[in-house]
Amino acid sequence: MSLDGVYDEGNPFSLILQGKLPSTRLYEDEHTLAFLDIQPQSRGHSLVISKWSKARNILEIEDEALCQVMTTAKKVTTAIRKALDPDGIHVAQFNGAPAGQTVFHLHVHIVPRWEGGPLGFSAHAQGNFADPAELQALAEEIRAWL
Amino acid sequence: MSLDGVYDEGNPFSLILQGKLPSTRLYEDEHTLAFLDIQPQSRGHSLVISKWSKARNILEIEDEALCQVMTTAKKVTTAIRKALDPDGIHVAQFNGAPAGQTVFHLHVHIVPRWEGGPLGFSAHAQGNFADPAELQALAEEIRAWL
Repeated sequence: MSLDGVYDEGNPFSLILQGKLPSTRLYEDEHTLAFLDIQPQSRGHSLVISKWSKARNILEIEDEALCQVMTTAKKVTTAIRKALDPDGIHVAQFNGAPAGQTVFHLHVHIVPRWEGGPLGFSAHAQGNFADPAELQALAEEIRAWL
Repeated sequence: MSLDGVYDEGNPFSLILQGKLPSTRLYEDEHTLAFLDIQPQSRGHSLVISKWSKARNILEIEDEALCQVMTTAKKVTTAIRKALDPDGIHVAQFNGAPAGQTVFHLHVHIVPRWEGGPLGFSAHAQGNFADPAELQALAEEIRAWL
């Protein structure tokens, strides 16, 4: 899907917000939700989304929703740092399939990195699915700092 | 440099803000500055920084400065899309050298992508320096939409 198109209420993150798909939640407030990626690129790979904006990408999102998402991303990044002590952290937001976007509800990736790991960020279509019990245990570690 | 440390006023982006280093400017307002990366990963690779925050990374930045930077990033992304018609756009922010950060003043990368190009985002230390005259011409194309 390119940068053109319309928001599809059947996308996985919309379904999470509608309560029709599960997620391993880290943090939630009135406007935003943070949860663990089920195909993590590293231990602690998290996602932050707006609960109300129907934006597929940064071109469409309301300024207010973007600020809310980024404020939560900062909060979650801070907690991940305290919980997991990474050496670096990637924050990334992909727009359009040719840039690696696979779910068309705007989301910010937070990917902890350790020395010797990748300096960059790859599209995660090739990632393996994480064990749900491990994600739950990891979420508890991170939530302790939120 | 890891996630620990202190802000160094001698970093290249601080020097740009102090008027001691040149930059190819795209957009500027009271709080933020956008300019072209001199080692672009693609045509139109741009950076957005806060003019007042002394934050090295997302862990340190004030919520207000983060919102200002992201609002400008959205504005510049929109202009790049109109000027250059990319198929996708990466927005990325790196924290700590192990995550590919090379300048320790928080900055957001905007990297236009075209079909068949990279799905991910690599640290740009290996990028070639762009021709200054080409950057100027490119900046004029983008500024026409700002």
